[in-house]
Amino acid sequence: MNGTKQTNKVELVEKGSILTPKGFKAAGIHAGLKRKRKDLGAILCEVPANVAAVYTLNQIQAAPLKVTQESIAVEGKIQALVVNSANANACTGERGLQDAYTMRQASAQQFGLDEHLVAVTSTGVIGEYLPIEKVTSGIRLLEPNSVEGSADDFNHAILTTDTTTKQTCYQTTVDGQTISIGGVAKGSGMIHPNMATMLSFVTTDAVIESEVLQHALSGITNQTFNRITVDGDTSTNDMAVVMASGLAGNTSLSPTHPDWEAFYETLKQACESLSKQIARDGEGATKLIEVQVNGAQSDEDAGKVAKQIVGSDLVKSAVFGKDANWGRIICAIGYSGCPINPDKIDIAIGDIQTLENSQPLHFSEEQATAYMTNEETIMIHVNLNNGEGSGKAWGCDLTYDYVRINAGYRT
Amino acid sequence: MNGTKQTNKVELVEKGSILTPKGFKAAGIHAGLKRKRKDLGAILCEVPANVAAVYTLNQIQAAPLKVTQESIAVEGKIQALVVNSANANACTGERGLQDAYTMRQASAQQFGLDEHLVAVTSTGVIGEYLPIEKVTSGIRLLEPNSVEGSADDFNHAILTTDTTTKQTCYQTTVDGQTISIGGVAKGSGMIHPNMATMLSFVTTDAVIESEVLQHALSGITNQTFNRITVDGDTSTNDMAVVMASGLAGNTSLSPTHPDWEAFYETLKQACESLSKQIARDGEGATKLIEVQVNGAQSDEDAGKVAKQIVGSDLVKSAVFGKDANWGRIICAIGYSGCPINPDKIDIAIGDIQTLENSQPLHFSEEQATAYMTNEETIMIHVNLNNGEGSGKAWGCDLTYDYVRINAGYRT
Repeated sequence: MNGTKQTNKVELVEKGSILTPKGFKAAGIHAGLKRKRKDLGAILCEVPANVAAVYTLNQIQAAPLKVTQESIAVEGKIQALVVNSANANACTGERGLQDAYTMRQASAQQFGLDEHLVAVTSTGVIGEYLPIEKVTSGIRLLEPNSVEGSADDFNHAILTTDTTTKQTCYQTTVDGQTISIGGVAKGSGMIHPNMATMLSFVTTDAVIESEVLQHALSGITNQTFNRITVDGDTSTNDMAVVMASGLAGNTSLSPTHPDWEAFYETLKQACESLSKQIARDGEGATKLIEVQVNGAQSDEDAGKVAKQIVGSDLVKSAVFGKDANWGRIICAIGYSGCPINPDKIDIAIGDIQTLENSQPLHFSEEQATAYMTNEETIMIHVNLNNGEGSGKAWGCDLTYDYVRINAGYRT
Repeated sequence: MNGTKQTNKVELVEKGSILTPKGFKAAGIHAGLKRKRKDLGAILCEVPANVAAVYTLNQIQAAPLKVTQESIAVEGKIQALVVNSANANACTGERGLQDAYTMRQASAQQFGLDEHLVAVTSTGVIGEYLPIEKVTSGIRLLEPNSVEGSADDFNHAILTTDTTTKQTCYQTTVDGQTISIGGVAKGSGMIHPNMATMLSFVTTDAVIESEVLQHALSGITNQTFNRITVDGDTSTNDMAVVMASGLAGNTSLSPTHPDWEAFYETLKQACESLSKQIARDGEGATKLIEVQVNGAQSDEDAGKVAKQIVGSDLVKSAVFGKDANWGRIICAIGYSGCPINPDKIDIAIGDIQTLENSQPLHFSEEQATAYMTNEETIMIHVNLNNGEGSGKAWGCDLTYDYVRINAGYRT
């Protein structure tokens, strides 16, 4: 190693999962919180894993988030992560907090760990008490293992109104060794700024200190998980956790490590992939919308404008209606609060340029409709021609099914 | 008058309109911008009226807003206001600006006025050029008068996807004289913060200087027009205009006038009434939602929290589903960005207390569903128990019809 930056390749691992990195096991079972589907899962590491986590910025935080933060505060490591779906254990007061402690205690006992090595989390309905007997009975049945199907069991166990599981895996080379980063997520509704009922769990076998990992995760979260929106609602239960087993045997990663960039990029790819999967599976969604903004005064502004566009109910409805309605896009740009030059904006939908220097162009409506009908991902390109900043955001269309799902979710 | 504050009664005038205050005439016709319905209207005052106006905070402002601002800048007076619907003349560049000037010029000619006494505005589709021939031909047919039906003609002429006209009228006593404040509005979609495709035109016969009127309108707008939301989108075309003919003959109003409070309250009632009518007629809406927040650290915070709740797609969907889902309400409170005590929140839906000190209460789901089914207006009461601030906001439910309307509006 000569200290110059290497850009080792980042490679997608087809069918890779949270079990691809060395040292992890998983389980997912039906514990009776949902009628039939899996609703309780665990990720277990062979060794105490260095950990980084980010949490919802909602001032109302669910009980398990508090308990998990306590666990991580002890030594920056966890060895097991236990999740239930169907009930968020949020807004449940003192009893909810006790239930979260009970859930952690039962898990520690089941896996023979100190309590502070266990993280717990919950997702589902807010404001109802956790059926704690079902949860603890379920925990006693959790037997994580590393066979292929276990990751899928876990992936299913954390879903609520999601229609599909979400997983990803990327690899790169650090110190000549392959290191893997696997991830799983759930999303669906309440997906917006600063984390939503978004749970993302990422595993890696890289050797990296918790503080360094935390720094990387925080930066990447701002460009990935915090750049998706389904409905503008920020949940009480969001969290993203990265566990690093350290079994890949590289020298400890930090920004001065020659392969740091490769590691960082790999982690970012994994988080971006999960983010897009979450946006694509937004409640009722039929399309993924990706907005790329260039020419902003800063990257932060670009991200903010992109997110404002992808969060506009009018833009989302237009995508559902296959209508290349750039008027709603420029309108959203105008109220983003970021500095713009109102006369210099370019907008394209896919390859179809619709606005140049804020002046409407003639374009084929048929071609635009065809693009919006045929493509799975609708690309919106904006150039503000006002600086060098760029950024992306992801979302989904607003459909009848979003309304149907959310008018009847609790009942 | 002895200088002590009087609180003269504010009285609703049944069927009162913009023509109730002395000195105003109106017209509304079909000029061919819409297929069949009225699409061009004017309010004309017998004398140059003192005027106050507030405009969208969207950085992209439609051409007519620029022209109207120029008119008002000359001497703070206008005598005629001309509005077309079906086309917003927004994002139409230099040609759009010329069209707005042409519209003003044609109006000035038709009514025999200096151009700077004419305000113009447009509402409808963004990004298409105004069919200016139809507009100018239409203007030459405008003959405002004061017969009863003329106000209704105007009320209709400014609508887009609105399902009903919106008007209001209140009266009070100033210097022993009756003064009237009438108003008309259109709203529907793109209704959010800081004005939306919300047009509100208010007439009064009170004697009041333009600067004083402007100050009153700005304060009132923050508590009324800026407290409604339909979909979180802020239009390029919003404006609220108040025209004061001065024909009531009172001594000029100002905050030191003994009847100032009565006048201010009357103007506020008129603006609040229009705001609620706009929210109730949000695209696809079946219910008006009114959120009252108390116990915030400031009135501003209370308004912000109220607006966050009423703007949540999840809360809006729950109201459509007649689901007393207070979890989504507390979630919105948590991400409002305002200081709260997460353990001290009370929430009631109508008279049904659902949360006390952030702890769920047992309540009858049947009773809650009955309330949400039977009432036209759904009241959400929040006490943050964290200060003395209070504020209200208004919105509507999110329905299949919102999606239907906005998936196909342009085409």
